[in-house]
Amino acid sequence: MYIGRFVIVGRTPQGQRFLAYRVSSRSFPNRRIVLSADRATVQPTADAPSTDNPYITYNCLRQHADTVVVANGSHADPIIEKVAAGYPLRDALALTLLALDYEHDSLSTPRIAAAWGGDVAWLAIVTAHGLLVSSMQPEPGTAALVATYELTSPTPVLLRAEDPGALARETYYLAYEHPVAALASVLKGSPMSATCGPSLD
Amino acid sequence: MYIGRFVIVGRTPQGQRFLAYRVSSRSFPNRRIVLSADRATVQPTADAPSTDNPYITYNCLRQHADTVVVANGSHADPIIEKVAAGYPLRDALALTLLALDYEHDSLSTPRIAAAWGGDVAWLAIVTAHGLLVSSMQPEPGTAALVATYELTSPTPVLLRAEDPGALARETYYLAYEHPVAALASVLKGSPMSATCGPSLD
Amino acid sequence: MYIGRFVIVGRTPQGQRFLAYRVSSRSFPNRRIVLSADRATVQPTADAPSTDNPYITYNCLRQHADTVVVANGSHADPIIEKVAAGYPLRDALALTLLALDYEHDSLSTPRIAAAWGGDVAWLAIVTAHGLLVSSMQPEPGTAALVATYELTSPTPVLLRAEDPGALARETYYLAYEHPVAALASVLKGSPMSATCGPSLD
Amino acid sequence: MYIGRFVIVGRTPQGQRFLAYRVSSRSFPNRRIVLSADRATVQPTADAPSTDNPYITYNCLRQHADTVVVANGSHADPIIEKVAAGYPLRDALALTLLALDYEHDSLSTPRIAAAWGGDVAWLAIVTAHGLLVSSMQPEPGTAALVATYELTSPTPVLLRAEDPGALARETYYLAYEHPVAALASVLKGSPMSATCGPSLD
Repeated sequence: MYIGRFVIVGRTPQGQRFLAYRVSSRSFPNRRIVLSADRATVQPTADAPSTDNPYITYNCLRQHADTVVVANGSHADPIIEKVAAGYPLRDALALTLLALDYEHDSLSTPRIAAAWGGDVAWLAIVTAHGLLVSSMQPEPGTAALVATYELTSPTPVLLRAEDPGALARETYYLAYEHPVAALASVLKGSPMSATCGPSLD
Repeated sequence: MYIGRFVIVGRTPQGQRFLAYRVSSRSFPNRRIVLSADRATVQPTADAPSTDNPYITYNCLRQHADTVVVANGSHADPIIEKVAAGYPLRDALALTLLALDYEHDSLSTPRIAAAWGGDVAWLAIVTAHGLLVSSMQPEPGTAALVATYELTSPTPVLLRAEDPGALARETYYLAYEHPVAALASVLKGSPMSATCGPSLD
Repeated sequence: MYIGRFVIVGRTPQGQRFLAYRVSSRSFPNRRIVLSADRATVQPTADAPSTDNPYITYNCLRQHADTVVVANGSHADPIIEKVAAGYPLRDALALTLLALDYEHDSLSTPRIAAAWGGDVAWLAIVTAHGLLVSSMQPEPGTAALVATYELTSPTPVLLRAEDPGALARETYYLAYEHPVAALASVLKGSPMSATCGPSLD
Repeated sequence: MYIGRFVIVGRTPQGQRFLAYRVSSRSFPNRRIVLSADRATVQPTADAPSTDNPYITYNCLRQHADTVVVANGSHADPIIEKVAAGYPLRDALALTLLALDYEHDSLSTPRIAAAWGGDVAWLAIVTAHGLLVSSMQPEPGTAALVATYELTSPTPVLLRAEDPGALARETYYLAYEHPVAALASVLKGSPMSATCGPSLD
């Protein structure tokens, strides 16, 4: 099954908060995720063909204080900027997804996001048919996924690793078609430090 | 079970589009629903004790062209005004619920709404924990309910009547506690005429 | 000149921060402003004729911590609730005015607001023709007014009093037609205490 | 004087509706504007040094039916998409600028936009200190400018040309520092055809 890009939020078996994001793509496979201190960026690889598609390059993870968000497009930036300005995560997710809306490509591809704000987990998606921003309290060893196609409602997913590198690998190898790159982040302390797993490509 | 106020959207067994709304209340039972051409209003009855509670009196149904919306508070007005201005129903529901938010009473009571926009049905709810705006295509003889307490996600509900008066009665007598008044509206044609059932009190 | 309801934000000659609000009305003169701890409310007087106009009764002043807002309608509530949730005042004013919009009466009467958030003053107005949310730093002895008609852009206004009672009287007797009631609030400390002047009617 | 990027909306001496946009830059001079059917795009030139600055490449003009908008960043896209969805221009401008906010660079550079929606002209700007969305009705031979620095309120500007190429040149050579590229668009008919002047670089 091809479910496109997807975000995951959950707790590891030992109860650590984590986020994951996978780029899946039929059209633009030549991409990788570059990690830096408070963000991760999806970029074309050196050998990627040139494109003017505005949905290719974007920050897919942003952190501010005790909030970390992963997203499938440029909305990660205004979401975290609104949190930095004082918005509750619920409002930052809802306003940004309402304003930027689904991608205006031929599939009306949804915008999706997952986040931790302190001890509260969030999933969000905007499609042509609705808007969902939902908080949850994942038990240790449980996680939920939202994808751009097929699995557009929160869906349980099983990951077993504790460290970000292994979580990124598990995410990359989940049995959904056309993996391109994967990222995982384990959150420690408050304000959080987001340890990100090596992007795989 | 006490589920508070609730909205319903669905199709009758013969496939007619309908909406229903029930006022349920432990605190302010002395209320009725008054019908007029393009709206219905929840009001205190003549014998109701005086109150300065801002959530007692409001338009619970508004119509504009081929859109009809029912709601548990004053948000019915800005929702229909934004639709009249050209907003898609999805955006009118999302922006209004995001801005007005849940009621700031001791229970953080959610704001809820149900609507038909042409042939598309909608349910919406904002709580302290999330925001949902969701379209649906109910089959004949099926309907879904969203309530302020307990049943805060779309929940199937069975109503059998075809005409608004009987639908209002069925809604009033659904087995949830503390009914106060009920309204049903059957939508015909496009732009719709909303035939509203007698409010029950 | 009839300029309708208006809000004022400024500093007294001695530099104290203040807000004022005047109800002016050709249609509903039988109203007064009732003061309580963290709010002020426009209400019909005991002898007012009954009406179902939804724009008659509303909180015209709300306070939360070091923010105080005055407004010409029910938008004072969601503005202060969004500030309490963490929004910057700019965003609370803009989102609320965008969502609730001008009053849908025969004149498309604008919604207006004035506020202090800490040491920053704000004026805001939404009309059919635009939206303005603007911060300012009034010098001692200066103030600006925004009204629902004619003076719909920030306009200098001269008030001389230092205490809320005298400021409310000055506001009531400004040479604009059809005064109904006036309120002034002088803000002290941080978080602010809002000392409100006697409503005049 | 350096006023950064700026947008212009007005009517030519003969009364034609036009829009103009100039890229001015101290940091990224190697850019040009590429024209296509319903949009214009700011892009790095072939010899530009590589950068990961997210504010370098964007659609600076978008058209949908009888609406044309110019903007200094990626907000042109959601603005025109919301208009295409049915939003009034006022609401599309306000929601998008509120959500995307000023650029989070070291100068908190404002987002600005100018537009024609039918026969109504619009200017909009969001800064750290406020949000303005304002309609206007320019007389023949008059125009107004909003810039990212210094001239952040609508400011009259004199342009004399009638055709887009000459208007783009006039815009490029306005006496503000560091011009990089300029675009002008003259709107004809309804739905409009936007004839864009040659970008200058």
